[in-house]
Amino acid sequence: MRDVAIIGIGMTDFGELWQESLRDLFVKAAIEAMEDAGVDHVDSMIIGSMGTGLFTGQEHIGSLMADYLGQTPVSAYRVESACASGAFALRSGIFEVASGQSNIVLCGGVEKMTDVPGAQATYALAAASDRDYEAFHGVTFPGLYAMMATAHMHKYGTKREDLAMVAVKNHHNGMLNPHAQYRMEISVDQVINSVKVADPLNILDCSPITDGAAAVIICPLEKAKDFTSKPIVKITGSGAASDTISIYQRKDMTWLKATAIAAERAYEMAGVKVSDIDFAEVHDCFTISEICILEALGVVEKGKGGEATRNGLTARDGKFPVNVSGGLKSKGHPVGATGIAQIHEVVTQLRGEAGERQLKNVHRGLTQNMGGSGGSAVVHILEVE
Amino acid sequence: MRDVAIIGIGMTDFGELWQESLRDLFVKAAIEAMEDAGVDHVDSMIIGSMGTGLFTGQEHIGSLMADYLGQTPVSAYRVESACASGAFALRSGIFEVASGQSNIVLCGGVEKMTDVPGAQATYALAAASDRDYEAFHGVTFPGLYAMMATAHMHKYGTKREDLAMVAVKNHHNGMLNPHAQYRMEISVDQVINSVKVADPLNILDCSPITDGAAAVIICPLEKAKDFTSKPIVKITGSGAASDTISIYQRKDMTWLKATAIAAERAYEMAGVKVSDIDFAEVHDCFTISEICILEALGVVEKGKGGEATRNGLTARDGKFPVNVSGGLKSKGHPVGATGIAQIHEVVTQLRGEAGERQLKNVHRGLTQNMGGSGGSAVVHILEVE
Repeated sequence: MRDVAIIGIGMTDFGELWQESLRDLFVKAAIEAMEDAGVDHVDSMIIGSMGTGLFTGQEHIGSLMADYLGQTPVSAYRVESACASGAFALRSGIFEVASGQSNIVLCGGVEKMTDVPGAQATYALAAASDRDYEAFHGVTFPGLYAMMATAHMHKYGTKREDLAMVAVKNHHNGMLNPHAQYRMEISVDQVINSVKVADPLNILDCSPITDGAAAVIICPLEKAKDFTSKPIVKITGSGAASDTISIYQRKDMTWLKATAIAAERAYEMAGVKVSDIDFAEVHDCFTISEICILEALGVVEKGKGGEATRNGLTARDGKFPVNVSGGLKSKGHPVGATGIAQIHEVVTQLRGEAGERQLKNVHRGLTQNMGGSGGSAVVHILEVE
Repeated sequence: MRDVAIIGIGMTDFGELWQESLRDLFVKAAIEAMEDAGVDHVDSMIIGSMGTGLFTGQEHIGSLMADYLGQTPVSAYRVESACASGAFALRSGIFEVASGQSNIVLCGGVEKMTDVPGAQATYALAAASDRDYEAFHGVTFPGLYAMMATAHMHKYGTKREDLAMVAVKNHHNGMLNPHAQYRMEISVDQVINSVKVADPLNILDCSPITDGAAAVIICPLEKAKDFTSKPIVKITGSGAASDTISIYQRKDMTWLKATAIAAERAYEMAGVKVSDIDFAEVHDCFTISEICILEALGVVEKGKGGEATRNGLTARDGKFPVNVSGGLKSKGHPVGATGIAQIHEVVTQLRGEAGERQLKNVHRGLTQNMGGSGGSAVVHILEVE
């Protein structure tokens, strides 16, 4: 198995981008990544997207994007695992490079979500839950995470304010990210008094509906220096796992088992412990998610995610900064693009290119991307050479 | 890069299976493949499906199927490239095994298409074409292939009867396949006098709307004998390519460039020429497709696909049997499952397990699976040890 490095990254702004189509978004991010890597062609393309069919009526985006990027006749296909589509696309590309099949692979993610009415978006997103045994009965994604939040508060004494603190922190971080959809400070009071979505979650506990794309170029580690003079970012760990798609089937709905197992697998592959990680980008689709993820990654003990957030562990200047990009909450959440945008942020930080939001002395970062209510999860560990 | 073998295969009947849900179909095929391979667990699952979102409102089928197959917490995701989703799922699995990451990978395909009204199915299938520049303007898939047929007839003198002969041959073959959706003989006259869909294509020139699933288990070649005493089928070639998604952008709309390039890549990887191949399963979504595919694979010269079919080259008892399973036309075409079902047939023939439809003296078979109007294509070459 050949070692794999990331040599190029690109992403669009995230937001309500009504003047840019699905293909425009992807091509923009892909060209930026190719220019960053210093390559004018790729051997293969793998594109993460959750809902191009339900959001835009377009499937077959492997062919479409290879075509509009001017890269035919490369091999090109789409990977889907709900909101974890981006990270699975990268993982699939890693094995293609590691096996020796391809040398330069473009792994991207894209979603165009804001062109459909809200009800249609809710229907499309509910496709990530169990359509027959969850969505059909009326539960939406905020509803599922609201149940997880309620259970966490009941079981561990997590406070309403702890949930709010996740959003406050991530919006604060997003202020420094020019790509972020919502660059505005919010307060705990604002979160708690914002419009109710599914008790206890309010609108400011939820990540937004977003258009956007991101892309990375990977190659064998030993060839990376042939392409770029920038710091080489090595992918040292990739772990993926699944859990029951429905939360009602889980023994403990506060425990993100797929994330915990994906993390174990990534730590083992990288030969590291969680304490060796300097910072992380994680899947804060709702405020409760980030709290549960901290626990599943082993950053804190079970039940301590709220308290840790309250005490500043995960703040920019905390011991373990989480979502310095603004996370899904402030940066935005174009579902299929999110996993790749997380990689974009970690590479940017590891290269020291993060400008105003640059973390000091970071050498090893982690990304955690998950699908649905945690039915699939991927954890990657990246290190700068 | 480790060599990869197929040690288990399974598939459901293909047809209008109103009593079986999406998950039922997949799990049935997957269990059959696991039993055939003699394994009770897999390391990873990759599932090809084109349109679970638009056909059933369900995405995130990696998690769903891992869950219902009892295989959580394995890594599981979906691959999509329109009607080539199945073959791309296998290709993705091949690299996962070849890289050394996983030892036992389940690659499957599934589609549940008959639960939606015809207009919705037409909308869902049109998602494989360019939504903005083809489908939006009213052209459907029969319409796209009808233009290819008209161009082929004009350029090469291909006869209406030649198109019909593809359907007649494949229905004749399907009579011997217990899994086939339409087990009935048809005549050239019946095809030519059947209901018009898009001139010159009639209903009997079109593959049907189908429910079904198929699955294969792959592992490193060197471990294959640990699992099964059946003949080991080795994957010696895997080639994939893309072309413009729209046919209006192609210099020659009768030439399936992605198929031609995918085939070249597969031949090169396997170290063979087309004349070394004993038989093939190809993507006859419409009768004209099979004619163009014969040319793109290099089985016959450009323009000679119709004549070759008329002269019996591709018949069961011809020099180069094509679609002895009945092909998409008679066996049925659950789009995401088709690429894996083709592998199922080739493995069955190479193992000598095809019963009444067994070909004699076959050692090397080819599958060709394509998406949309040929915007993506995958060719695999399988050999019995």
